[in-house]
Amino acid sequence: MTMTAERQKPVSDEDLVRGVRAGDRALLARAITLIESTRAEHRARAERLLETLLPATGGAHRIGITGVPGVGKSTAIDQLGVNLTAQGHKVAVLAVDPTSSRSGGSILGDKTRMARLGQDPAAFIRPSPTSGTLGGVAQRTRETIALVEAAGFDIVIVETVGVGQSETTVSEMVDVFVVLMLPGAGDELQGIKKGVLEIADIIAINKADGDNRDRASRAAAEYRSALSILTPVHPAWKPPVTLVSGLANQGLDELWRLICEHRRVMSEADAFAARRREQAAGWLHDLIDDGLRAAVTGRPAVRALLERLEGAVRAGRRTPQSAAAEVLAFAGLAVNMPATGTTS
Amino acid sequence: MTMTAERQKPVSDEDLVRGVRAGDRALLARAITLIESTRAEHRARAERLLETLLPATGGAHRIGITGVPGVGKSTAIDQLGVNLTAQGHKVAVLAVDPTSSRSGGSILGDKTRMARLGQDPAAFIRPSPTSGTLGGVAQRTRETIALVEAAGFDIVIVETVGVGQSETTVSEMVDVFVVLMLPGAGDELQGIKKGVLEIADIIAINKADGDNRDRASRAAAEYRSALSILTPVHPAWKPPVTLVSGLANQGLDELWRLICEHRRVMSEADAFAARRREQAAGWLHDLIDDGLRAAVTGRPAVRALLERLEGAVRAGRRTPQSAAAEVLAFAGLAVNMPATGTTS
Repeated sequence: MTMTAERQKPVSDEDLVRGVRAGDRALLARAITLIESTRAEHRARAERLLETLLPATGGAHRIGITGVPGVGKSTAIDQLGVNLTAQGHKVAVLAVDPTSSRSGGSILGDKTRMARLGQDPAAFIRPSPTSGTLGGVAQRTRETIALVEAAGFDIVIVETVGVGQSETTVSEMVDVFVVLMLPGAGDELQGIKKGVLEIADIIAINKADGDNRDRASRAAAEYRSALSILTPVHPAWKPPVTLVSGLANQGLDELWRLICEHRRVMSEADAFAARRREQAAGWLHDLIDDGLRAAVTGRPAVRALLERLEGAVRAGRRTPQSAAAEVLAFAGLAVNMPATGTTS
Repeated sequence: MTMTAERQKPVSDEDLVRGVRAGDRALLARAITLIESTRAEHRARAERLLETLLPATGGAHRIGITGVPGVGKSTAIDQLGVNLTAQGHKVAVLAVDPTSSRSGGSILGDKTRMARLGQDPAAFIRPSPTSGTLGGVAQRTRETIALVEAAGFDIVIVETVGVGQSETTVSEMVDVFVVLMLPGAGDELQGIKKGVLEIADIIAINKADGDNRDRASRAAAEYRSALSILTPVHPAWKPPVTLVSGLANQGLDELWRLICEHRRVMSEADAFAARRREQAAGWLHDLIDDGLRAAVTGRPAVRALLERLEGAVRAGRRTPQSAAAEVLAFAGLAVNMPATGTTS
């Protein structure tokens, strides 16, 4: 069932650009497949494509949504997306899941997870690039955001599951970061993942319906109390806690209102565009760091040396300094190690 | 008043090693000055010195202490240090302050800040390496920890002020991380720096004396409540909140008991040595990353290009991809950019 660029008729760069700009879903999908490819000639084409489309990007409201498995992310995003397309929006849903083993073309899983949005002609759902480093998955997702923006989608939802650093990574590519939480109180609140409260712009307690309503309200009060002693992401915006039910379609209009209110407040504080500029600069530095690191990890002989020396450092037989110097020298990068301090 | 290696009689590597091992304070200070030097021949000597001393390192209990300016860090560390030397311990106090503008040799400031410990023959106080990148300051401090351990100090206190990422950096070079907080409650608790509660192994409310006692107790209750919904650093250790007064020498014995209890619990969970092994491996990777990054930032022409392209990326005129590729190519590092995903 997978449809990939390789098995299809070749398409010229010009046709790909025109197709994406016209919102042609088949060509958009092929463009995304192209940027997900690791082949060198595909990467070169992908970079040209992104450079050409650059002036057409940036038009979407970029929304990150996270939550642990079982919190009801798919149901909530499905319902929120359907509500938004009903209002005339074009909604793209992307995913960042570095543990994903789904193939790049198999989007049936996601279409099934979001049954109504998957059938919605105003929506476009794309699963996570397949397993790889979080940095690599994130890079592809940032590029895919640019593509769907060039294709005219005005809302991009980037979904992530709470694995490793994936929430922080996603929060650094979106305008607003929404954390879905389970209703519960007291002990049930324990074990919130490190740092997630601190990067949340909005917290939504999901499944706040029926018998859960009271527990969800108590949970909201506890989260508000915890948030009150943390520095917010931006001084102009105090992260609100709201109740939603994806299943019952309750509270999602209020959640959307808060997302738009966040944009208004941040724009008035000159912080909306500034966040995007910082993100772009941070992305540039990440790419340079990744490229530099590939000088080590991309070469099997260097990687083997690093693994051997790391074992010696862990065992206390080598200093990190001498091991690092040996790895860099072997990689042909015996640059002067940076240092501070002075003997004036 | 500054005494630097340059103005003193040269000392051989062998004498330096012997002097440090014998706990000779003057030679220990010279060894630290050597590792803080940025001169290439000093760095080479410093690396040989550290490699030679490696088997003699690792013997100290490494304690990180942070807190905002005004929390009374110096008074608390002065008193805690004096209590510990009275029990027969040898205590070294180092600082990580990337904003420091004190010269490498001027330790009078710190000796004045810690009036009694500065006069204590069983204590050794060394200020932060002078201003530089946090990474560079941290590197020198890690190396200084090794030197004072080789000199026989069995307790190393690494002090940091809450600037940028300095707390996280220090928490990654110590066995236990203590956060000093001001007494206060409600609104006064607001504005805790992001992440600091999440890396704390022990929280101590300082200035919990006299009229402050009640406010400190209320603050402790609030911190306990906030901590109860955060995942602890290690499942075996739930960070306790305790009251101290550096000025009145109250609660410092209990703080020390908690620090030792933390070591016992972590050792039983096989997590004490494991934390050090992870730190050493992380340090190796940091050093390699720093060395790689120096291929960009250490060369003025590359740095100038990066600054120009970063401006274009921020303004939305260039994609981060093409800018990163241009910087890497100019730096002679046109390695294949890493990528994930597949078109299988």
